[in-house]
Amino acid sequence: MAQAAEPPSGTRDFLAAEVRRRERAFASVRAAFERYGFEPLQTPAFERLEVLTGKYGDEGDKLIFKILRRGEHEASGEADLALRYDLTVPLARVVATHGNRLPMPYRRYALGPVWRADRPGRGRFREFTQCDLDTVGSSSPLADVEILLAINDGLTALGVPEFRFHLNSRQALYGLLDAYGVPEDLGSRVLITLDKLDKVAPDAVAEELVERGLGADTAAALVADLAADEPDRVRKQLDGTERGRAGLAEVDRVLALTAVLPAGRVVFTPRMVRGLDYYTGPIFEVSAPGYPGSIASGGRYDGLVAALGGPDLPACGGSIGIERIMSTQESQDSDEPGLDVALTVLSDESLPALVGLAAALRAGGLRVGTYLGASGKIAKQMKWANDQGAGFTVLLGPREHAEGVVTVRDMTSGDQAQVPLAEAAAHLLGAIRR
Amino acid sequence: MAQAAEPPSGTRDFLAAEVRRRERAFASVRAAFERYGFEPLQTPAFERLEVLTGKYGDEGDKLIFKILRRGEHEASGEADLALRYDLTVPLARVVATHGNRLPMPYRRYALGPVWRADRPGRGRFREFTQCDLDTVGSSSPLADVEILLAINDGLTALGVPEFRFHLNSRQALYGLLDAYGVPEDLGSRVLITLDKLDKVAPDAVAEELVERGLGADTAAALVADLAADEPDRVRKQLDGTERGRAGLAEVDRVLALTAVLPAGRVVFTPRMVRGLDYYTGPIFEVSAPGYPGSIASGGRYDGLVAALGGPDLPACGGSIGIERIMSTQESQDSDEPGLDVALTVLSDESLPALVGLAAALRAGGLRVGTYLGASGKIAKQMKWANDQGAGFTVLLGPREHAEGVVTVRDMTSGDQAQVPLAEAAAHLLGAIRR
Repeated sequence: MAQAAEPPSGTRDFLAAEVRRRERAFASVRAAFERYGFEPLQTPAFERLEVLTGKYGDEGDKLIFKILRRGEHEASGEADLALRYDLTVPLARVVATHGNRLPMPYRRYALGPVWRADRPGRGRFREFTQCDLDTVGSSSPLADVEILLAINDGLTALGVPEFRFHLNSRQALYGLLDAYGVPEDLGSRVLITLDKLDKVAPDAVAEELVERGLGADTAAALVADLAADEPDRVRKQLDGTERGRAGLAEVDRVLALTAVLPAGRVVFTPRMVRGLDYYTGPIFEVSAPGYPGSIASGGRYDGLVAALGGPDLPACGGSIGIERIMSTQESQDSDEPGLDVALTVLSDESLPALVGLAAALRAGGLRVGTYLGASGKIAKQMKWANDQGAGFTVLLGPREHAEGVVTVRDMTSGDQAQVPLAEAAAHLLGAIRR
Repeated sequence: MAQAAEPPSGTRDFLAAEVRRRERAFASVRAAFERYGFEPLQTPAFERLEVLTGKYGDEGDKLIFKILRRGEHEASGEADLALRYDLTVPLARVVATHGNRLPMPYRRYALGPVWRADRPGRGRFREFTQCDLDTVGSSSPLADVEILLAINDGLTALGVPEFRFHLNSRQALYGLLDAYGVPEDLGSRVLITLDKLDKVAPDAVAEELVERGLGADTAAALVADLAADEPDRVRKQLDGTERGRAGLAEVDRVLALTAVLPAGRVVFTPRMVRGLDYYTGPIFEVSAPGYPGSIASGGRYDGLVAALGGPDLPACGGSIGIERIMSTQESQDSDEPGLDVALTVLSDESLPALVGLAAALRAGGLRVGTYLGASGKIAKQMKWANDQGAGFTVLLGPREHAEGVVTVRDMTSGDQAQVPLAEAAAHLLGAIRR
């Protein structure tokens, strides 16, 4: 029974405090994105199966939750729908569906759950919220810059105190391979290995590069320049190749246009790769002290919308790892809003008066709870009021009822005052508005 | 392609205007419920299949979206999970899962999508939002009353201008059968037929009652009293039976405690049945001029939480037909918030200045869009600004850049002013805050 009552593996029930904390976080990110003119988009929880399959690689495909056909077709054991796996494929589908109705360039954000049949683990869920923003239909470098700036504002709004954008460019990465004479066919594997330099010792990375087929001298030079964290050494190398110069130009344009941010907020990190093949221009990852891994990332991916089934439009975007950020911040939260006023229920005759008082207080915007338990005892009802975090408690027992008054208790100071029933609402509204 | 790009049958993509309209509606209902101390609850989109099956009757079971097992088990064609069909079964499951952590009585609201494989049609969707509030663990009549009052406030917040609660009681319905000598075994069918009196002519209803097995005289008397819409005639009858008196007492208690509402807002409607068998106490439905069917409903269902797999606790609740209300109101909406400021992009040299100006305006809370299209022409960019509903447009061409000024155009009046770049943010913030 206890086992059967748990939510499905990898999913969570969010009780009040957690719902409020999440909604506050979501609202602050939304507000930041809205200030850039990004517009909200909500798509269904599921898509037609064929819209999703083949978009996430073999490993990804296995993690898609598929929905069984219904009615007479259920017995076939086949699926025709699937829960969305991310928010990008639905975006591509929406651009295909609503193309003409969308403003172009289309700037949208999406914040909502996605589902992946991953093995659940610490901080890894099967239902989790993604937070994306994308600009479809613009090649302007300003589009790339504003993704980065909006993410900067979103992270700030989420209360991440300190963070850094590691900026690079797909072009610059190709230039890097050219500059160090890495054979074209080894390129992507070399990049994947270089990406480990923030976690793995330089010697081990150089060793892996040799295993991948790179000459020992080339590997050593490459690792020495990148591990030194001296972008100027790498800049010099990139400057000697055509793709490198193009990449540096991309990087420098973004650096120039994000100069509005605090110094050191955006840094050129030539070894930052981003695993995904579909990036075509500037790319970035955000790290923050005290937070594991990267807490945001993105870049330009001009061919992706078409590859995902949409029209062939340039696009750039990014996403905030909002679940990761919220779970890191978890311990900080506490200030759950309690009731403004708790109304005890001490006699049947006073119920109409209590309901009237509650209505007046709620009309004034206060949060008012009435005691709905079975006990007629004051002590038990006061404990309830206290558990509800009530600011004030109203007592309306038989004596008060007969005299046409209520007793108002300030739960912080413990002070009690007797107030005529007719003035109780004004008294409490005044005391709470202060 | 056009076909393939549609969202799945019975689901909808919500673009910006619609997302905002829905979120506004949801937020206003949430705020109303919060003032009563109801707490938000969010449960996963899917539950274990066995949690849902057998809870909605045979017809309901067929409409559950089932999720195929994964990995090596996918080939079995079996399902182990299912999308939630309503918000009540998940509530029962949550009370079972988190019992000790929940305040008791537990007052929660839930507002979120549910999924039913119903045949899609006008105003009927396969993914739609439900809006429930329930109090679990209280037998207090105040609990019933506050459900009704909170729904009253929710409907008011949603902008339903006029509406009426039709109030009845399960006990009163049994009393009605007793008073008119309806045989016990015909009871529920007779009630279902009587429920049609708001749509079907009295004669036809009487005829159907006779078909159901009722004597012609009994059928005529019953229909005459109920169709007359004179509750006092029915009250007299109910007063002659034990169950009728108990039911009247329930009804009168709710009427007395909702006297705080406008006159006529809650009326005793003895023929109102509510189809569902699980109600045990007061029941209600809300109708509103201009809105089809009932726009809210609820009642007390003391055995339901246990029947749905939770512990045996008394409960009452209600729900607002928020999709029905929103689709009826659809035509009224229009005021989509535009950009506060649109920034045109007329020269590359001015980009850093533009980004700085945008940052200052956004830091002041304004919604600022920059032109991301490919055209360098003022006319095209002004059209874009206009399409975005911009309040002000900023022009920063090569001449302005050279002179260190910007041109600010008030899009409502058409007035233009030249402002030093360094003062542009303060100028716009002042003009918009006014």
